Amino acid sequence: MWNTNKFCEQLGLTYPIIQAGMAGGVTTPELVSSVSIAGALGTLGAGYMTAEDMTESIIRIKQLTNHMFAVNVFIPEDNNLSSERVARADRLLDSYRRDLQIKKEPFTSTPFPYDAQLESILELNVPIVSFTFGVPSRETVKELKKNNVITIGTATTVEEAVINEDRGVDAVVVQGSEAGGHRGSFTGDFSKGMVGTIALVPQAVDQVRIPVIAAGGIMDGRGVLASLALGAQGVQMGTAFVTSQESGAKVQHKEAILKTTESETVVTSVFSGKPARGIRNQFISDLKEFESELPGYPDQNSLTKPIRKEAAKQNKPEWMSLWSGQAPRLSTRKSATELIDGIVRQVEGLIQEKW
Amino acid sequence: MWNTNKFCEQLGLTYPIIQAGMAGGVTTPELVSSVSIAGALGTLGAGYMTAEDMTESIIRIKQLTNHMFAVNVFIPEDNNLSSERVARADRLLDSYRRDLQIKKEPFTSTPFPYDAQLESILELNVPIVSFTFGVPSRETVKELKKNNVITIGTATTVEEAVINEDRGVDAVVVQGSEAGGHRGSFTGDFSKGMVGTIALVPQAVDQVRIPVIAAGGIMDGRGVLASLALGAQGVQMGTAFVTSQESGAKVQHKEAILKTTESETVVTSVFSGKPARGIRNQFISDLKEFESELPGYPDQNSLTKPIRKEAAKQNKPEWMSLWSGQAPRLSTRKSATELIDGIVRQVEGLIQEKW
Repeated sequence: MWNTNKFCEQLGLTYPIIQAGMAGGVTTPELVSSVSIAGALGTLGAGYMTAEDMTESIIRIKQLTNHMFAVNVFIPEDNNLSSERVARADRLLDSYRRDLQIKKEPFTSTPFPYDAQLESILELNVPIVSFTFGVPSRETVKELKKNNVITIGTATTVEEAVINEDRGVDAVVVQGSEAGGHRGSFTGDFSKGMVGTIALVPQAVDQVRIPVIAAGGIMDGRGVLASLALGAQGVQMGTAFVTSQESGAKVQHKEAILKTTESETVVTSVFSGKPARGIRNQFISDLKEFESELPGYPDQNSLTKPIRKEAAKQNKPEWMSLWSGQAPRLSTRKSATELIDGIVRQVEGLIQEKW
Repeated sequence: MWNTNKFCEQLGLTYPIIQAGMAGGVTTPELVSSVSIAGALGTLGAGYMTAEDMTESIIRIKQLTNHMFAVNVFIPEDNNLSSERVARADRLLDSYRRDLQIKKEPFTSTPFPYDAQLESILELNVPIVSFTFGVPSRETVKELKKNNVITIGTATTVEEAVINEDRGVDAVVVQGSEAGGHRGSFTGDFSKGMVGTIALVPQAVDQVRIPVIAAGGIMDGRGVLASLALGAQGVQMGTAFVTSQESGAKVQHKEAILKTTESETVVTSVFSGKPARGIRNQFISDLKEFESELPGYPDQNSLTKPIRKEAAKQNKPEWMSLWSGQAPRLSTRKSATELIDGIVRQVEGLIQEKW
């Protein structure tokens, strides 16, 4: 059986499929609960949320389903705030604000909500937590385990997968270079983690004992079956769920994915201060030459947020962050339930037909 | 059965595995014939060869086996020879020549051997020809077909796969961004073809009717099975054969692959004038800042060739082109026969165990 393994058992899943915990409003409680009810694992992307907003969403998810679900949080990093960089980046954004007719807001550095989020996660008995941009401390993992919270890490290299295992997480998502949205890299130059899924997964599987979850470029049953063949115990899919009916992604974002091709995405730091894969547009081209001088995350993210938000309102997708992986031709307008059902049927059909 | 499909039947293969036609001395007649005798498809990489040298190798292959084999040739491009660029690049190489104590040779532009190669291929009744860096003309395809030569194209995007199909080739290799050696891109900016195998293959399969062969990051039975799951009818493997016993790769090249990791390869044009993936070394770092000003292929290749050759003799791998894909941790010292036998056993084991 393709859908029975240690990982599914451990997480109480019918199918070894995780809906990625994409931050920024995509992972509505409706999406998360639909995915979990369909037998996969829904994840609330809480990366940008305050503990209060996250709590509200978790309560809503629990009203919608009794199934397992996960919450994804960002590991805080040293924020080497450079007010000079912030000021320079802010000036670069003047022309967009002028065009959009929005005012410059006084810049305030956003604190990482991590500690407060973890506290709420424990209080609310969230069953599964996944981490991006780093690894939780040994103490955090211990504390979560003591409270029966299952932990999932994120890695973009074999080395990062090994670090996750050493910290004691229960499973690790290995993110291939095809993945849409932010790179999960946390050890030095992110380009060293730009490794394709078909190459990264088996190399990671050989070096860790915890279950490896494949991510990056997986959109349908073919990708799921391929990942299992590579030795992964499950998959994590992001872009495929962005265009689903329950997703909270902006309509322009959904439409951009539905009509683009495999050649039109690039990895850029200009929106958030961290490298992420999205559809090439004017904002990316405009700021490309300044990329290395922009502030890091979360400062650049805070600076561009009002512009991206207003651009969506005024229907200017050229100035929005249109995150997408490298297989957008496989995106659909299905509901999350139809998407998962379709994948399951496709996997079973392929096994019958081919082997 | 995993190893029976239209593609295997058409090519007379027992297993849907192609050994890539790597240029530069890797694909010895011993390697090509061993692969073909083992039930896969050996390919002579004739890209850099004169028609005479190619003919000699083909005759030797035919002495060694009656099985099917292929010859890979490069499609010629407009060579916008800039003597200024050549002179500048040549000056950059002075310091290497000085250290290696070799003389500067007068530069002569190498003509593309394509037409003469095709003539010899027809004369020698080569059963299969594959093409890189472009597509053969409709007339060439017709002529080859008339002579019962099977043709295989190379693509790095869906668009390039469709162009290949339109030209009438019998199958198309789609090369994911993980692949070692040269990018096969032939429509504009190669970066638009830097798409991971797991994303590229199913998108291409959906758009062409000819068999799609997956390439990039495939090193063992897991990669083969994954590729078939994605809808490919076969795989092409390069790096896995570079380290095989029958390979003609330099010993330093083999050892470099055997000891490196997934994070240590980069795509660079500094060796040949065309983007190719190899293991990061000093030559690449040294010339990185001049990359955009270097001459194109084949001129830069001709310029650096004596240096690379002498660097190998003097055991300076830092100045050699150490082509490798993104899964070098999976490389082995096996013979080509053991490699293929191992893959077959692994595929069959995985199917039994998992499904």
